[in-house]
Amino acid sequence: MFEARLTAGSMLKKITDAMKDLVTEANFDCSSTGISLQAMDSSHVSLVALLLRADGFDHFRCDRNLQLGINLGSMAKVLKCCNNDDIVTLKADDNADAMTFMFENQTQDRISDFELKLMDIDSEHLGIPDTDYKAMISMPAGEFQRICRDLQILGDTVTIAVGKDGVKFSVSGEMGSGNMTIRQNTSVDTKEEEQVTIEMEEPVTLNFALRYLNFFTKATPLSGTVCLQLSKDVPLVVEYAMPDLGHVRYYLAPKIEDEA
Amino acid sequence: MFEARLTAGSMLKKITDAMKDLVTEANFDCSSTGISLQAMDSSHVSLVALLLRADGFDHFRCDRNLQLGINLGSMAKVLKCCNNDDIVTLKADDNADAMTFMFENQTQDRISDFELKLMDIDSEHLGIPDTDYKAMISMPAGEFQRICRDLQILGDTVTIAVGKDGVKFSVSGEMGSGNMTIRQNTSVDTKEEEQVTIEMEEPVTLNFALRYLNFFTKATPLSGTVCLQLSKDVPLVVEYAMPDLGHVRYYLAPKIEDEA
Amino acid sequence: MFEARLTAGSMLKKITDAMKDLVTEANFDCSSTGISLQAMDSSHVSLVALLLRADGFDHFRCDRNLQLGINLGSMAKVLKCCNNDDIVTLKADDNADAMTFMFENQTQDRISDFELKLMDIDSEHLGIPDTDYKAMISMPAGEFQRICRDLQILGDTVTIAVGKDGVKFSVSGEMGSGNMTIRQNTSVDTKEEEQVTIEMEEPVTLNFALRYLNFFTKATPLSGTVCLQLSKDVPLVVEYAMPDLGHVRYYLAPKIEDEA
Repeated sequence: MFEARLTAGSMLKKITDAMKDLVTEANFDCSSTGISLQAMDSSHVSLVALLLRADGFDHFRCDRNLQLGINLGSMAKVLKCCNNDDIVTLKADDNADAMTFMFENQTQDRISDFELKLMDIDSEHLGIPDTDYKAMISMPAGEFQRICRDLQILGDTVTIAVGKDGVKFSVSGEMGSGNMTIRQNTSVDTKEEEQVTIEMEEPVTLNFALRYLNFFTKATPLSGTVCLQLSKDVPLVVEYAMPDLGHVRYYLAPKIEDEA
Repeated sequence: MFEARLTAGSMLKKITDAMKDLVTEANFDCSSTGISLQAMDSSHVSLVALLLRADGFDHFRCDRNLQLGINLGSMAKVLKCCNNDDIVTLKADDNADAMTFMFENQTQDRISDFELKLMDIDSEHLGIPDTDYKAMISMPAGEFQRICRDLQILGDTVTIAVGKDGVKFSVSGEMGSGNMTIRQNTSVDTKEEEQVTIEMEEPVTLNFALRYLNFFTKATPLSGTVCLQLSKDVPLVVEYAMPDLGHVRYYLAPKIEDEA
Repeated sequence: MFEARLTAGSMLKKITDAMKDLVTEANFDCSSTGISLQAMDSSHVSLVALLLRADGFDHFRCDRNLQLGINLGSMAKVLKCCNNDDIVTLKADDNADAMTFMFENQTQDRISDFELKLMDIDSEHLGIPDTDYKAMISMPAGEFQRICRDLQILGDTVTIAVGKDGVKFSVSGEMGSGNMTIRQNTSVDTKEEEQVTIEMEEPVTLNFALRYLNFFTKATPLSGTVCLQLSKDVPLVVEYAMPDLGHVRYYLAPKIEDEA
């Protein structure tokens, strides 16, 4: 039997919305330590990895490991029925063919429960090798979203160049070309969520498909800050941390120069 | 000669918006006691009945009974030209072929008048029998709207079950199933417009097409509270009362079990 | 070399949005006194004229006259990448094949630069004769926008009649007909931006295509007040003034009675 209760029900909404456009269906792996999910997008170009730690829930019980195959679009629809201040409880019996979503408002005079049919989904759990990334950027999540959205106007491929002066995002296309540069900003006058930190062992310049970055930034409502990690010839990591609960991480392989 | 003046012009906008998607054209029956309208939707499944009492208007004069056939879509378009704080005056001569809408702003430096052509519409005035309903639910209009909209995600037919524990709205479909339950809530801590009252002589369980309920909830802006009345084998009544002015009522026959 | 710096970068956004739906591409004529642009819409019915004075910029330098041919749709897209409180700098070398847009945020830790390719555009500079207009109306820009948008519901052609009682905008069509009348309002109780002033040497009644007026009102965000000038058989002038910077003016020939 699996049961997990989250007072901040809206968090589950945002998590689902952060994945559903990239991945249509995925297995939620539930164990006593929490819930994890790993899935590639349909074109097998990028990967999303979700971790929700058991102790981040208000109540969490999972007697034996369960793999719950869920259509994320359907889950997002069901979660639309959850008010933002509702308490959400997820439930599934061992050998269940459905997952139950229970929504309660604070005064408990309104209760909803939804059963979502489970699916058999082929899972291909990829080992993600530990990498010693050469550059790490922490920046406001909203700003990263804006950059990816704005640059898409000019072209399909962004070049991210981390150097000592900052991080430069560049695009060029038929209409013209554009560069957006952000610089380290950790002065005490800057609010924590507006700070930009750049840690760099060596300069890194890589090309990425903006289309996927724009899927990743659907996770922006989850966190004030996004963390990018880059190394040559290794997938970019885009991480949205949820304090006390876990994270959503996206991986995207760089484009080879010739393709760019 | 017919002339009716309403300081809260925005009310007339909301009334028209509450009907125009269900009924394309209808007769406004004007008499010395007020304005009434009764019309079935184009598929003859549901009925809307409007009553605006003469004394709810700031000025009301109707020398002889008039039947004004109006295209509600056109009327809604004309009323879009009415600012929310404008004063509205409706006018029609006896034997008129047009209804005049006059909009004045509070300072009277802006005046608009629109003439809308009248139509000949076959009217079939249905006698609605007085029924002694077995269950009556009064609840926040916004919450009823939300339930009807949310459940539509899962299926076409809602089962409304009134019992001693509360009212349960249930739907099931291909994706899964869902239940939303609301309970009586009349504690002094609850604001009047958030109260839920359930009066029940005997339990009632009936099925309805969500499609029509979602047409009815277009009336939500008219009233903080909606009142549902149910009895076995008798149409559901969904009423939005406008204090001091009148009401909009919708009638919908239950679905026979086999169809559900 | 041309370089112009504007602290209120959002102004340039609004100027571009005010023209891009009417005119797809146009020449920006840059000289030491400022920037001007004149272009007809693609159907050669209306004309837009922009003037931005050199001293309205925070910094302005133009060594020799330049004609910069720009696709306004592309320019609007690039300016979407400009935050509302960014500082904008426009730059072009003599003989440049691109215009550079530089956006800096106030704290200068984020800098973007975009290069937009220049185009060769046939320009037909029309001399606009000085006219002694018989009627001039100054009114809230938002109200003029609303009137043009609302009346479009009923028909394609608006009749603007300036008389001693005020200005009457009339439309008639299949659904019915409508009139909106505004009156002079310069009482001390009225906020300046809500005032209506009507100066009239003789009554004027002219017909115009609402379609074009609705293109002109895209300039509404530029100014609180719009000024209309009319004379018989002469194009209407619709002017949005930008204090200390310049103006956007639109010209539209009246419809001949027979066409209306």
